[in-house]
Amino acid sequence: MNRTLTALAALSLVTVTTAAAGETPALEAQASAALDGDPHAWDFVAGITTEVGPRQAGTEAEARGRAWAMQWLKAKGFANIADEPFMMDTWIPGDIARARVTAPFAQDLVVLPLGNSGATPAGGIEAEAVFFRTVDELRAAPAGSLAGKIAYISHQMRPAQDGSHYGFAGPARWVGPGIAASKGAIGAVIKSVGTDHHRNPHTGGTSFPEGIAAIPAGALSLPDAENLERMFARADRRSVTLRLEMNPRQIGQTQSGNVVGEIVGRNPLLPPVLLACHIDSWWNAPGAFDDGAGCAIISAAALHVRQSGQPLRTIRVLLAGAEETGLWGSKAYSEAHIDEPIAVGIESDFGADRIWRFESNFRQSNPALHKRIAAAVARFGVSNGSDVATGGADLNIVRDQQGALVDLQQDGLRYFDLHHTPDDTLDKIDKAQLRQNVAVWTMVVGILANESNSILTGGPIPAAPAIMQE
Amino acid sequence: MNRTLTALAALSLVTVTTAAAGETPALEAQASAALDGDPHAWDFVAGITTEVGPRQAGTEAEARGRAWAMQWLKAKGFANIADEPFMMDTWIPGDIARARVTAPFAQDLVVLPLGNSGATPAGGIEAEAVFFRTVDELRAAPAGSLAGKIAYISHQMRPAQDGSHYGFAGPARWVGPGIAASKGAIGAVIKSVGTDHHRNPHTGGTSFPEGIAAIPAGALSLPDAENLERMFARADRRSVTLRLEMNPRQIGQTQSGNVVGEIVGRNPLLPPVLLACHIDSWWNAPGAFDDGAGCAIISAAALHVRQSGQPLRTIRVLLAGAEETGLWGSKAYSEAHIDEPIAVGIESDFGADRIWRFESNFRQSNPALHKRIAAAVARFGVSNGSDVATGGADLNIVRDQQGALVDLQQDGLRYFDLHHTPDDTLDKIDKAQLRQNVAVWTMVVGILANESNSILTGGPIPAAPAIMQE
Repeated sequence: MNRTLTALAALSLVTVTTAAAGETPALEAQASAALDGDPHAWDFVAGITTEVGPRQAGTEAEARGRAWAMQWLKAKGFANIADEPFMMDTWIPGDIARARVTAPFAQDLVVLPLGNSGATPAGGIEAEAVFFRTVDELRAAPAGSLAGKIAYISHQMRPAQDGSHYGFAGPARWVGPGIAASKGAIGAVIKSVGTDHHRNPHTGGTSFPEGIAAIPAGALSLPDAENLERMFARADRRSVTLRLEMNPRQIGQTQSGNVVGEIVGRNPLLPPVLLACHIDSWWNAPGAFDDGAGCAIISAAALHVRQSGQPLRTIRVLLAGAEETGLWGSKAYSEAHIDEPIAVGIESDFGADRIWRFESNFRQSNPALHKRIAAAVARFGVSNGSDVATGGADLNIVRDQQGALVDLQQDGLRYFDLHHTPDDTLDKIDKAQLRQNVAVWTMVVGILANESNSILTGGPIPAAPAIMQE
Repeated sequence: MNRTLTALAALSLVTVTTAAAGETPALEAQASAALDGDPHAWDFVAGITTEVGPRQAGTEAEARGRAWAMQWLKAKGFANIADEPFMMDTWIPGDIARARVTAPFAQDLVVLPLGNSGATPAGGIEAEAVFFRTVDELRAAPAGSLAGKIAYISHQMRPAQDGSHYGFAGPARWVGPGIAASKGAIGAVIKSVGTDHHRNPHTGGTSFPEGIAAIPAGALSLPDAENLERMFARADRRSVTLRLEMNPRQIGQTQSGNVVGEIVGRNPLLPPVLLACHIDSWWNAPGAFDDGAGCAIISAAALHVRQSGQPLRTIRVLLAGAEETGLWGSKAYSEAHIDEPIAVGIESDFGADRIWRFESNFRQSNPALHKRIAAAVARFGVSNGSDVATGGADLNIVRDQQGALVDLQQDGLRYFDLHHTPDDTLDKIDKAQLRQNVAVWTMVVGILANESNSILTGGPIPAAPAIMQE
């Protein structure tokens, strides 16, 4: 018998056993409890969607949302709760959004304005609609060729578990209207960047190039966009004319804010673990998936970790304001706190369906910790991903600090059915999947918040205070 | 060997073989062709939803729908096409429909008016909302107890394959607002009579008792109704107040019409087979399921039967006007044609999902024909039902004549997801299930249109002309 091999085998067995049996019994038990019956996440998302509802950035509704969240964090025993204000440019959607095909077939279409859309004159505009299958087709249109016309951009999105098709279809919204305006269009409508078939358009921000004035820009619901495309197909050389009326407007600078709260660690001088989400939604949706659920998940996980024993590091939740309208909160938070090192950042902003993959940006630099986390979440059906975590929209500070990031990828097949639509309501949340999120987060945050070394490197903490209280 | 028994067995075998091998090869082949690739039904429903769209009864949109349908029937070679006019009372929805909870939680709710709803004063009404779980709870409220208040009626509908829960939940809409008004309510909102969870309310007609003036009456989408109920649950003795603004109105008598067309039989003097659907929809939906699909199915089946050879009897399609707003077309058709016997009536008005059961009202009186039809449709997955067929809403004439009826029951599990909502769009139609409908209808109509005896009794035709041309 080869004793060396046996010893290696025994060591190997120990490693496996540790991974399988997991982390501290208290943390394992809390994660299991979260999976079976976490009450906090549902309480948060049901509460904010019912008692506040839609909460567009920079409006009184978002302010009510922040106040509600602070009260909730306080009731749950978070410390150092604050609403850190910042100013932002605010656009509001108005109360008129009408579209109608007037020829060759008369029919109303359901439309909503895109964020930063211009307004039509009162009474609307009516013009020939020009069909573009893709943004690239629009880009290829000759300069001035859209003068006096309304551009329609198709650019169909498809569901993908990792949401990757957003990158393919998103430009129709992000830059399509701006390109159309630069070629003379007096309006633009897009097929909603979404994957459902309900009469609820997907809004979201658009932008116009420097020096190009905003034109009226709206999203049609998927059924309406498909109907319009059938009309183009049946028009048989006749023009398709569209009437469009919308009255959104820019109202200048208003105040938003970032809500923060903490589970204070045993050594509050150590860089904290930052858990991010965003508190704002578009005006048209109570933001259950986007991102009430995210704030619910991170807050619930922080509570479960606390329940397993006071963590070494402070856990800070950042319920960012004004994400939808341009990451104002994320930028403001980074600016205000850039000199305060963050140990690691994690964000939840992709709905409430199950987490299926764990990724970090320290898989190479701190493989032991990466493997330990991967092993700890395997029992929840989460795989060990090899992609490099990039963090969510509200983790600007961590990217600016070039710090450690973890991504807990959620199943995105349903996400773009609901994203930025009125249908993003509480009933869409599957309670069992929501609890799986909380369980996985509890494990991951519990490990990270009790890690005494640098999370990014596994070595000593570069920016750590000289005296450790532990 | 018992020769009698053998003879019986042989006879039995022949019967079974006939049933299994089916009807004439030409008819069997047409039904199979319909199942595999019927082009007509999709052509109709895609056409009318794209080129006409919503077509509320008594409006110019319905008139466009009738004109479109006549043109389609003509292009397909139907004979004796006509638009038989009648007058009706017409209500229109207006262009304002807003609801907002103002206390204890401020949030907009998505609402649409019910047919025959009254209007609010300009600027709307604001009042305490009173929660009623069921219509019976509302009925039990003391007289005058709703003075100055807005009634909210919950009364949750559930999906059922046979749509039977409509009978349970429907009264919330049909009579709920009228009962509330009779107890002094100044407004009523109901949870949509529907089974989906999208932000698209289900409208539909309501009515008010004699002597009770119409009050503003609206349907909330299911997510909004559930949200309102959560607010009631969290109000904790505080009043829930609701603001409601709607501007529907009655516009008096306008004209509608019944579109008819025929596949003329070899003996046009025999009572015809009547295939019914309705051409109108509510204003908020292009009526793909309700009832573009029905008109598509009956017309396509008539064409397939013709393709299998000229039928003995005339097949008449009745694309009734103004079904949704009170069966005006059905009543007008019966009144105009009551003295012209109908051989048998069948209607398609329950969407486009697969047919699962065949029923007749001649199972007892003409068992041979009932069994023959049941055997002929078995290969399409259709069972032989023992319920007595009652016919659809547009078959008043057959009921008034106490004539023969066939019901081809469709799978209704999805029907009330879409019924009377903006979501009733073309994309909801499953092409394979639509074709199954056409195949089953082809078989059934083919058998009935070639039946020389009375369909109701199997005996000589009571009202038949003396000389048969066959």
